[in-house]
Amino acid sequence: MRAALDEAAKGAAAGEVPIGAVVVKDGAIIAAAHNAPRALHDPTAHAEILAIRAAAAALGDERLSGCELWVSLEPCAMCAGAIVHARIARLYYAAPDPKGGAVEHGSRVFAQDQCLHRPEVYSGLGESEAAAMLRGFFAERRA
Amino acid sequence: MRAALDEAAKGAAAGEVPIGAVVVKDGAIIAAAHNAPRALHDPTAHAEILAIRAAAAALGDERLSGCELWVSLEPCAMCAGAIVHARIARLYYAAPDPKGGAVEHGSRVFAQDQCLHRPEVYSGLGESEAAAMLRGFFAERRA
Repeated sequence: MRAALDEAAKGAAAGEVPIGAVVVKDGAIIAAAHNAPRALHDPTAHAEILAIRAAAAALGDERLSGCELWVSLEPCAMCAGAIVHARIARLYYAAPDPKGGAVEHGSRVFAQDQCLHRPEVYSGLGESEAAAMLRGFFAERRA
Repeated sequence: MRAALDEAAKGAAAGEVPIGAVVVKDGAIIAAAHNAPRALHDPTAHAEILAIRAAAAALGDERLSGCELWVSLEPCAMCAGAIVHARIARLYYAAPDPKGGAVEHGSRVFAQDQCLHRPEVYSGLGESEAAAMLRGFFAERRA
């Protein structure tokens, strides 16, 4: 989670919402990314999507079976859907997101009967640091 | 919808699940794509995601305000989430998808209280052709 939080900080430094994600396979980080929709002019460029795409490209496989995704915030519906399509084995996220999360909130993508693949989900590790980074970012924007 | 169905046919010819999408702005097609997760080694490479990314890149804007998305199948949770993030104004889809759709099925992304942007949604135009293409594709795979 340290690496995901470091990515989030890089996102903040770049003027993006501070959310970071890494993909881990066999204990090694194979992809890392932070939110970048503004810089990339790409509404899909959430940290999770960028990390998943980079990991799949690195492995030459559209499926990331056996891989873990570590992310600083509860994934939204788009990213939860991508986690399903990528067959991510384990999802770790730091802070819950009542406003946009779709794991334990809102769409609850993995809880749907139609969901074809459900990752193991672990949350809370690094929560206070991830949440403080987001609060700081938005407080600065409002100031 | 003709253009979206033609894209779907191109997908089938390339060995991908035959789903196609186009983004329309002011009556003109600004992006078109078919499903390509296999060819691109990218689990996020659904037709909608590819078309939205291409349209945003073409406009140099992470938001596709005022744009329409035409797609041959009901979008999944990932794609519905991307439609929200992109601020697509109107969504037209041909066939419903009880197994994976997240507009009128499953996660019902636009119906969530937390949903920040809801496109107008129109469905059914071209449904029989889109559904027949999908049935043909999967029947051939099973044969």
